[in-house]
Amino acid sequence: MRLYLASTSPARLQTLRAAGIEPIAISPGVDEEALVAATEAASGPLEASEMVQLLARAKAEAVVGRQVDGEPIDGLVLGGDSAFLTGGRIHGKPHRPDVAKARWLAQNGGHGDLWSGHWLIDHRDGRVRGAVGRADVATVRFAALDEREIDAYIATGEPLLVAGAFTIDSLGGPFIRRVEGDPSTVVGLSLSTLRDLVRELGVDWPSLWNRG
Amino acid sequence: MRLYLASTSPARLQTLRAAGIEPIAISPGVDEEALVAATEAASGPLEASEMVQLLARAKAEAVVGRQVDGEPIDGLVLGGDSAFLTGGRIHGKPHRPDVAKARWLAQNGGHGDLWSGHWLIDHRDGRVRGAVGRADVATVRFAALDEREIDAYIATGEPLLVAGAFTIDSLGGPFIRRVEGDPSTVVGLSLSTLRDLVRELGVDWPSLWNRG
Repeated sequence: MRLYLASTSPARLQTLRAAGIEPIAISPGVDEEALVAATEAASGPLEASEMVQLLARAKAEAVVGRQVDGEPIDGLVLGGDSAFLTGGRIHGKPHRPDVAKARWLAQNGGHGDLWSGHWLIDHRDGRVRGAVGRADVATVRFAALDEREIDAYIATGEPLLVAGAFTIDSLGGPFIRRVEGDPSTVVGLSLSTLRDLVRELGVDWPSLWNRG
Repeated sequence: MRLYLASTSPARLQTLRAAGIEPIAISPGVDEEALVAATEAASGPLEASEMVQLLARAKAEAVVGRQVDGEPIDGLVLGGDSAFLTGGRIHGKPHRPDVAKARWLAQNGGHGDLWSGHWLIDHRDGRVRGAVGRADVATVRFAALDEREIDAYIATGEPLLVAGAFTIDSLGGPFIRRVEGDPSTVVGLSLSTLRDLVRELGVDWPSLWNRG
């Protein structure tokens, strides 16, 4: 059984690879900000859980009708999105060092919730046979960094490109004291949730293993 | 600042590498079973937390006086050990498929505690300048696998070589529903605990980063 990943996130790709799955990654090309703005204009502010599901679903649906190397998609298509919620606000990628530093000074020694959304479409024999989705949340508790550590971490550039200005699977790992939830949710793709969804579509999990 | 890893565990090495540290790995050559047996004969049964600390310390101390490429060790020496406690018993590596299957049938859908021990020796300028250690624990909650999944997982060989017959960082990731604790503790080396110990020895954490 083939898995198609409707995401360009290196962390999601790496999470799947570590779990024995080499997906076919396809850039979904969804204008996330426009979709969120249009949805909120129509029906009011989105909770973090709703936002990640909206975007995960949009990514999967943007990809499912495409062709890969001239062939239609034949397998399961996974869309994923994530958001970090702390202090009652959703925080995205800081992009700039000063924004990342302000984020760290605010969350240092504190905690937040990482929401990951998942949407899985079963597309085989040229048609959609089913679709399921679920958001999952994990609480992240940060260590108390001194300012030199924060500056050194930000100087690596790594925190600039991730929601909440932290990573758990690379340089930021030692700065996470504790997680309550599925650790892969923090990386942006809950493997245990994905397994649930795969099974809900009637597919055996081990049938996805395609890495030696 | 150089880090020496007194362990041959590929998971500990990979955990450090992901966090930006390429250690010098040295096989400690400690007879773990004999050391535990002698200690328990002298002073009674060890708790899981005591056992992992005993072995982590023995590994670091076995390595600290050695030479690497004709040079004495100059930096921090880390010893590590881990044990899985569930149903009131410590479970090691199953080695055999039938033992791994019995373990999974017992823990399926349940939970256990992964204990990781750490001992860190500061050895610079030809002498021991300090040593600190701490054990850390993380609770692991398993998904409910069906028997075909258990058989397929065991057939890969991966669960045979790890305490508790599960991995979180490879094929077993989707079979972990939830962790309460530092996720790297589950892999056998708590990065947040190691950072604490490094700082207790007066060393800056970012000074250990040596991977590009």
